Parts: sequence; C-alpha cells; structure tokens
Amino acid sequence: MSSRERPRSIVTLTTDFGLADHYAGAMKGVILGLSRDAVIVDITHDIGPQRLLQAVFVTQAAWPFYPSDAIHVVVVDPGVGSERRAIALATPHGRFVGPDNGVLSAALPEAVREQAGGSPGPVALPPDCRAFEITERRYLREPVSATFHGRDVFGPAAAHLSLGVAPSELGAPVDTLLAFPPLRARRTPDGALEGQVVHIDRYGNVITDLRAEDLPESAFTVELAGQAVRGPVRTYADASGLAAIVGSTGYLGVVLPTGNAAEALGVDVGAPVTLRAGR
Amino acid sequence: MSSRERPRSIVTLTTDFGLADHYAGAMKGVILGLSRDAVIVDITHDIGPQRLLQAVFVTQAAWPFYPSDAIHVVVVDPGVGSERRAIALATPHGRFVGPDNGVLSAALPEAVREQAGGSPGPVALPPDCRAFEITERRYLREPVSATFHGRDVFGPAAAHLSLGVAPSELGAPVDTLLAFPPLRARRTPDGALEGQVVHIDRYGNVITDLRAEDLPESAFTVELAGQAVRGPVRTYADASGLAAIVGSTGYLGVVLPTGNAAEALGVDVGAPVTLRAGR
Amino acid sequence: MSSRERPRSIVTLTTDFGLADHYAGAMKGVILGLSRDAVIVDITHDIGPQRLLQAVFVTQAAWPFYPSDAIHVVVVDPGVGSERRAIALATPHGRFVGPDNGVLSAALPEAVREQAGGSPGPVALPPDCRAFEITERRYLREPVSATFHGRDVFGPAAAHLSLGVAPSELGAPVDTLLAFPPLRARRTPDGALEGQVVHIDRYGNVITDLRAEDLPESAFTVELAGQAVRGPVRTYADASGLAAIVGSTGYLGVVLPTGNAAEALGVDVGAPVTLRAGR
Repeated sequence: MSSRERPRSIVTLTTDFGLADHYAGAMKGVILGLSRDAVIVDITHDIGPQRLLQAVFVTQAAWPFYPSDAIHVVVVDPGVGSERRAIALATPHGRFVGPDNGVLSAALPEAVREQAGGSPGPVALPPDCRAFEITERRYLREPVSATFHGRDVFGPAAAHLSLGVAPSELGAPVDTLLAFPPLRARRTPDGALEGQVVHIDRYGNVITDLRAEDLPESAFTVELAGQAVRGPVRTYADASGLAAIVGSTGYLGVVLPTGNAAEALGVDVGAPVTLRAGR
Repeated sequence: MSSRERPRSIVTLTTDFGLADHYAGAMKGVILGLSRDAVIVDITHDIGPQRLLQAVFVTQAAWPFYPSDAIHVVVVDPGVGSERRAIALATPHGRFVGPDNGVLSAALPEAVREQAGGSPGPVALPPDCRAFEITERRYLREPVSATFHGRDVFGPAAAHLSLGVAPSELGAPVDTLLAFPPLRARRTPDGALEGQVVHIDRYGNVITDLRAEDLPESAFTVELAGQAVRGPVRTYADASGLAAIVGSTGYLGVVLPTGNAAEALGVDVGAPVTLRAGR
Repeated sequence: MSSRERPRSIVTLTTDFGLADHYAGAMKGVILGLSRDAVIVDITHDIGPQRLLQAVFVTQAAWPFYPSDAIHVVVVDPGVGSERRAIALATPHGRFVGPDNGVLSAALPEAVREQAGGSPGPVALPPDCRAFEITERRYLREPVSATFHGRDVFGPAAAHLSLGVAPSELGAPVDTLLAFPPLRARRTPDGALEGQVVHIDRYGNVITDLRAEDLPESAFTVELAGQAVRGPVRTYADASGLAAIVGSTGYLGVVLPTGNAAEALGVDVGAPVTLRAGR
C-alpha cells in the first residue's frame, strides 16, 4: 500500500459508445478532471448500439471479479434526455451508475430480478441495496446536454463517488428500478430445460442461459438450430467438433474449438435451446 | 490529493494506429519507461488511416473535457520521416504534440484557423500560444526510425513534457503551423446554410458542420441526399424517423434513433448539406 | 519519483480475447483486486482467435520498448484446462506469463529459438532466464475454471509478481519451453533470401521476415504475389506506388502509401517472398 490514505478508486465503463469516436475519451476527461487518481477500466465500449441485454450479460460477467469498492458505470441509453431517471445504486458488492432502463439489472440479485413484471419491468430493491436519482446539479457537468449523459451525468457522478461523495448526496432515494428477468432457462414438466442463446463471443462460442447448477449430473444433449450436441466436455481440448461446455461465466456454451460454432450452426442471440438428459 | 507534490500528468492519444498491431503498445511502453506515473488515455486509435480531418474532428470533440494541464498527442502522419516538422504546441487549454500537417488544428482558435490559406494551409500562432519544433535529441528515442515517430519522437516528447520539461526545451520556436479551416457551414446570400457531413459516428448519426449558434431559432429543414429532414428535436426519444438534433459537440446531426441514419440516407463524410429556416 | 518506495508495476496484456466481451474486463478486475497500483496496459486483445504466431510477432514488436521490470502477459490459449503448462518466465529484459504453447517465444533470444525442433518445439532455457510452472494455489484465483486461465491463473500470477512475489514462488522450475523458430528468411545458395509474409498491419503494410541486417547494402528487388517491388525507400513519402521499406520493427515491409498494399497484392500471412540484390 502506498502512503495515500485510501486505495485509488476503480471506475469501470461498459457502454455502446464504440472506440472510433470521441465519446469514451470525452467521458474519461470529465472523470479525470474531477478525480485524477481514479483507475478507469474499460470493460467494453462495443456493446451493440442500444442493446440493453448485451450490456447486462457483459456486466454480470465482469463485476464479480472486481473489489467491492469499485464503481461500475453502464451507459446504453436510448432514452437519454427524456424522463428516464439517472441512477446511482449502492450494493454490498459494488456501486453502479447508469440509466434506469434495465441496464443496471446485473447488479441485482436473481431473486429480485424474478419479480420483474416486464422485460424490463419494475422491481423493489432488496434491503441491502439503496438507489438514488442523480439530480444534484453540483455533481453534474453543466450545461447538461440532452444527448450525452455519459459525459455530463454518469461520468461526473462516478467521479464524485470515487472521491468519497455518498450516493445519497446525488439525489433523492428511489424504491424501485427497472430490471430484466434473470438469464435462466425454464424447466419443463418433463424435466427438460428450455432456454435461448444469450451471447455470441468473439470466438464464436454460443453462450446459452442454461446454468451450470441446473444441468443434469451425467450426460445430456443440447438441441439448437436443428442439431443435437452432446455434453458435457470439460475443456476445449477435449472437444472434437461441436461440444457443450460450462463456460467461465457459469453458463453452458456450445463451442467448436477448431472454428466458429455460431457460424457453423447459423445461430444468433435469441435462438431457442433445449437440453435433455441422456444421449 | 495524494502526498505527491503535483497531480499525475494526463497524456491522451489520438492516432490511426488501430488496436490490433503493436504500434500503440510500443508507444505506451516508451512513455511509461520515461514517465511511470503518467495517466495515458486512449481517445481513439481508430482514426481511418491517414484521415487527418477525422483526427481534427475527434480531437476537438474530446480535448475541451480535459484539464488544462493535459498533454494531447495526435499522430496521423503520412509524412513521417520526411521534412514535415514535429511540433509541441502550448496553449492556455492544454499542450498538443503531433506532426505539422494540420492534425493539430483542433488546438487553435477558430479565428486563427480562418486564416488558413489552404486545407491545410499556414496560419500565424495567436499571442497566447507557442509552438516548438521537436528536435532536441536528448528528448527523442534514439535511433529515431524513419517510419514510427509516435514511438520515437511524439511519445518521448509527451513523456518529457509530463515530467515538467518546458516545451521550449524541445527545440526552436516556430511562428506558423499548418491548419485546416474551421468545420463550419457557410451562410448564403439568401440566408441558408451550406455545409457538409463531417463525421459518421458508430450509431450512424450523420454529423454536419452546421453549428448550434448558426441555426435559426425556430423550425428548419435540412436537405441532404435528396431528403428533407425537419428539426430540431431535443432528444433522441423525441424523434420518430429521421430527425435533426444538436448533438453533444455543438454540431447539428441527422439521426435515426431506431436505426442507422447514414445507411438510411446513403451518405458519407463530405456529402453536401443545406439548411433553410421554416418547413 | 513519488513518495512510494518503488515505482508502480507495469503489466501488459496481449490476448485474443477481443474487446466486445467481458474477458479482458474480468481479468483486469482480478489483477486490480490484488494489485491496485499496477499500471495495466493493453498491447492488444485483437490477436486472431488462437493465432499463436501473430501473438509472438506483436509481443516481440512491443516488449523491447518497456522497462525491464515490466510484466508481460500473453494469453492465446487453445489448450486451456488441458495438460499444457502455465508458465512464468523471468528474463533480464522483463517477466513473461502465459501458456507453454509457444506464445512466450518472443521473450527468448533468437539463438535459443533456432534450437526449436518443431513449430513450436522444445528449447532449453538460456543461462540468464528462469521459468516456473504456475501451480501454487495461493497465487491462483480459486476455483480455477477449465476455460479461462487468463482470469484464474495468468492474471493472478502477474498481479502477485507485480506485488513482489518471486517467480520461483509460483511453482517448480522448468528447464525447457515450447518455442517457435525465429521469424527470419533463409539465405539460398545463390545469395537470395527466401522468406514469407509474417504480418499485415492495419495500414495494409505487408511485413515480411526479411530482416534489416540481412539485406543487401544496395538496391534489391522483392518478389511476392507475382510482382517485383524495388527497394529500398527510406520513408513512406519517398514511395510512389508499391515500395519496399525497412519498418520500425526491423523487418522489410512492402507498402503502398496511397492505399493498401496487402489488398493491392492480394497477399496474406504465409505468402512466400524472395529478395534478390540488384534491379
């Protein structure tokens, strides 16, 4: 530890800004102008434009590996400048900043997300979480534009949190947030699991919402895109051809170690997946 | 503030190096080898190869959000190794390092850029700016290659500036720089504005050189690619279909919130745009 | 120098994780959770999926520009979770962490790599290098997944090294590593050089394995893709049309300053290249 009194604050960024424009750069300038010692980490700026659920998937795959004092900024914000609220959410495992349109779902426990009466829909906050609407003008960058709250609202809010401002200073408390239901396949009466593809990664791995803890203990068959893939294998090296493997995020994936499984199968996010025990 | 005497220096990078090669990584190694505490921020490395004006647009959209002690390195450098000069430019709002081919235009006031007798053309520096040709060998990485001055000249110069070296120590003063004229539509005798598309962002927003302060106070129509788009709307959420909106950089954009305006219109950078008051 | 006792450690990352997924972000969270003051630098995450030799090329073009106390993490790892070893390699010019599949070749002297009895093949370590198999559980992130050792093995190992843990504490010493032969064209009996294309960069420059020190002192002709390109030129600005130029990595490249040489020639990595003295 250095001679400084507290460790440098971590601020992570997950956005759909892309890397070719000035958006991420301008937002970082605002953060560093307020909080020079912050450690800014790009989770990704390559969320597809306005793809809220992709942001939820990536965020929930990344934040568990950060210290609980980290501040996670998630900005995919088609409603920027409208009546949608800007939120700072404090949880036991980290603070989260972003619009109230469902992108902060990844910060909420699954049991809470199951209450969502829509996709997204409102949920009541659990007892160990508190959320505040970011409205206090002294913590914004003025004038606040109508089109870029990453720079003018969320970045400044995260910077002030990193300096020790309490979330409650940013604005009035809110009791409910919009959340997406958990990414989790349903069990059918005959014991199968019916889910869908939730992500295609850069290797072409097809990641489903079939969760490790829901899988049979022995062999199973995954059906997607008209093909039956047997599983599980433990490592990529164990696979010859298409194979089902529990990935590092705890979800079952269908992979093709010598190629691109998504292309080989012709599937994209949203494609239905069914798992049955046995071969 | 930490116990250190002065805050860590910010060094921003805007280049056409891309992210797949070693170029940005090698340049950062040189900077960190000299100035370990520098905060290096990527604005972007995805400027199109040798697209000088794109670098100007992105730089001028980013630097205003940085503290005035930041050092901005801009390297799009088709003339590397030739007689074009390497420049360190000190302004009241930041220091800028890059080749003298127009990419440093974003650092100069608009009134100065209007004197450019070419695109780019030479302009005299304003009284509050000073520029120096980077030639002092002790501030370069030797041997200086003929093809990669980001690593051998501009990166080392920025690192030394971040350590407190004065710009005047880097080499002899220069009185003129090459600059591009301002990105600003012309007013026609009949009161219309005639400009062009200056940027397409990752959302497909079509950003023009029509500036917020030049727009009519009431409704107007923007003509581009044979279509008439009415404006303005205040937020993306207010738009149904193609709409004109003043973006976060102060330029008028044509957007399609549910899709990609540039693709829908079939326009690219350079396409002519005309704005008339009324509908 | 700040008041801290030693400078912040540099940890560079070269992977095939891409930038759109959570992989790099999760790995950085693990590193920062252990070593908050580490300076994490992305060399690139855009190595082609499982393209080991591309990782070697980029790593050897980047690490020489870093201080010798830097820690370089290279993760392109198709064998993750299998019997392939995880390695920490200490050299006089830096420490390297990655799988034992050849990606650490860039850290080894050329004379050592020439002993490789395969591509990759085993080589004995030189006297000034020591390598250790990373197995000590207290330096891993538990539970260690079977599919993501960047997050669970290599990232934690690098973080512990950055905190002062000796490489020898990570596990048992190893005497041989897998390495790729040097990227270097062969001289033929008639004095020509026969090599191949080893990299295409983002400008479309065609980088060959013809090394600056192997070139004739006077004019030469490079044959590739059925074309004869004369050389050398010193700078891009000196070239009119296709030209041969010694690039910043010390390899001969074929470039087209006004366009994309690789596209103009229709070549990709692996294409044969022959150089003859004279015109």
